Amino acid sequence: MTHKNFKNIDKVTYGRGSFSQLSETIEPVRKENNGDFVFIVDNYFKDKPLSKKLQNKPGDLVYFIDVDAYEPTTEQVDNLRDAILAKNGLPSGVIGIGGGSVMDIAKALSLMLTNEGSSTLYQGLNLVKKAGIYHLGVPTISGTGAEVSMTAVLTGPEKKLGLKCDWTVFNQVILDPELIESVPVDWWFYTGMDTYIHCIESHNGIRNNAFSLAYGDQALQLCREVYLNEDAGQTAENNDKLMVASLMGGLSLTYSEVGVCHAISYGLSKILGTRHCYANCVIFQHLEDIYPQGVKEFKAMVKKHKIALPQNLSKNWDDETLTKMATVSFNLPFMWNHAFGDKYQEIATMDYIKNLFRRL
Amino acid sequence: MTHKNFKNIDKVTYGRGSFSQLSETIEPVRKENNGDFVFIVDNYFKDKPLSKKLQNKPGDLVYFIDVDAYEPTTEQVDNLRDAILAKNGLPSGVIGIGGGSVMDIAKALSLMLTNEGSSTLYQGLNLVKKAGIYHLGVPTISGTGAEVSMTAVLTGPEKKLGLKCDWTVFNQVILDPELIESVPVDWWFYTGMDTYIHCIESHNGIRNNAFSLAYGDQALQLCREVYLNEDAGQTAENNDKLMVASLMGGLSLTYSEVGVCHAISYGLSKILGTRHCYANCVIFQHLEDIYPQGVKEFKAMVKKHKIALPQNLSKNWDDETLTKMATVSFNLPFMWNHAFGDKYQEIATMDYIKNLFRRL
Repeated sequence: MTHKNFKNIDKVTYGRGSFSQLSETIEPVRKENNGDFVFIVDNYFKDKPLSKKLQNKPGDLVYFIDVDAYEPTTEQVDNLRDAILAKNGLPSGVIGIGGGSVMDIAKALSLMLTNEGSSTLYQGLNLVKKAGIYHLGVPTISGTGAEVSMTAVLTGPEKKLGLKCDWTVFNQVILDPELIESVPVDWWFYTGMDTYIHCIESHNGIRNNAFSLAYGDQALQLCREVYLNEDAGQTAENNDKLMVASLMGGLSLTYSEVGVCHAISYGLSKILGTRHCYANCVIFQHLEDIYPQGVKEFKAMVKKHKIALPQNLSKNWDDETLTKMATVSFNLPFMWNHAFGDKYQEIATMDYIKNLFRRL
Repeated sequence: MTHKNFKNIDKVTYGRGSFSQLSETIEPVRKENNGDFVFIVDNYFKDKPLSKKLQNKPGDLVYFIDVDAYEPTTEQVDNLRDAILAKNGLPSGVIGIGGGSVMDIAKALSLMLTNEGSSTLYQGLNLVKKAGIYHLGVPTISGTGAEVSMTAVLTGPEKKLGLKCDWTVFNQVILDPELIESVPVDWWFYTGMDTYIHCIESHNGIRNNAFSLAYGDQALQLCREVYLNEDAGQTAENNDKLMVASLMGGLSLTYSEVGVCHAISYGLSKILGTRHCYANCVIFQHLEDIYPQGVKEFKAMVKKHKIALPQNLSKNWDDETLTKMATVSFNLPFMWNHAFGDKYQEIATMDYIKNLFRRL
């Protein structure tokens, strides 16, 4: 057995107000390439105070990107790359300010600025040929773990799959809990639950180990403090904890693997465009037979925060749609293997997976 | 307030048997400099099976170093550096296989191979001028957190102080719990308690935050499983956990600060040469007024494993010795500030510190 050799984020700044250190953090990097930075910012902030605090210089390119319409696509990243290079050549670095989608766009862009052709060529493990340029992530919503992961998940014409390699990992992350204060309660819930589900799935499977368990246990403990216990809710103290939980949940799954919920979630998102964290919540509520303790606790958190998750979605899906979704999920064998062990192929058949979709 | 921008270990491999991946891990680095690696190995392994599994090539230099005699010194590192450069020029990298002392020698050596003059010139924060060469750490005893920290603590003619900068951090760490199986029970205890004390001190002070607390809480939980609970002891499962606890304890203190025990410990080690982890244990038992919960739990662990800690050491110390030790401790203001807050100078006077030494 080969043990994973995990690439860390090079540098991490954590603390309230730390976003104000952005310009001094990137200053030494401006000697690379054309001296300019590309800012990829969640469109949500376009007219918000944050847009006045970007600390960008003249020459820097600032793109406000609407990530609500759809999840990041290969075409979107390719077009952005072409536009940036046409404008002013190779920049010094890319800064992503937003949630998981913005993180993924920034990470993918960093790689695609130095690797030729379409990003569809690089969807998979270690297909990227050259190191990307410096890239820095500033999460403004916590939970996906995209700030720490070695993947930049993109939806292409063929597949929803990440550009996955050591170079994908951010050079720098700035974790400023003040930036997640304005997250609407429903998305605060869905994205935090992504962390929660990462840890439940990472724990319950053959690839867990003392490393992934330690990170996962602590992230779960933090999730309970943020979403379940007496002092639960969107408080300053809980926002401090949620940012750490997201990071630790990401490290837990990196050293282990996700499972059934994520496999189904990828199928749902690929075919219907459902946003990742929300899709996970829609699915996880129906997996009590697979993750009994986790789903029970999840439902208590849903109830506590009065989150309305949709039911009976599948009644409008014909067999063709079900088959398409199940095919995407079926083709994620490492997730099924982790969840069900070496005989996973006997359990996770197309029929079994289609029936999981029928639960939704 | 400026938030720390913490440099991570570039890459981490974790798992039983992962040490066997050493040669493939360093292979790509052999294209740097002269193509050879320097192995710094704890002398304990000289005739043990591990010495046959180093995976070194002809041309690589292997030094077995006795770290029992004294803690790493500036002179020792300078002499090693001179010998290595005289032999075959600048190597591709340095590999440290051992405990905290060996880690510190490997880290310091990596820096001193590219920075001129004596290592005494660089004792302090950010005094190192140039990046060192690639360096890789393989802990064979867990607890000091030296595998993750940004310091290489050396004792010089003037001071016991680390070479502290981003370049000090390892490029690669291999965490193989099989390597800590043969640690004698007393040192298994002392070094593990270094982690425990890191977390207690990191928690109890003004520099703590959600990041350091999350790492510290999880490391404390793991310490309880390894040293206190029903299944405590040197089992395979606990060794798996201890390696993770050491890493997390190191991250907790990096994002916060150590406190009174470490300040006193540095004084004791500098003047009497007492080994760090052991010194911490000797001191911590007497700090119940400062860390009441921590010391209570510590004593329960001492009792459980029948560890005999010396008493009444100070009865043989004259005032000159006490003053020397207290002076070293007094000159660590960041530790006293963390522990006692902004009015620390009113509390941690020379008299107060000398009285702490008299407790030993």
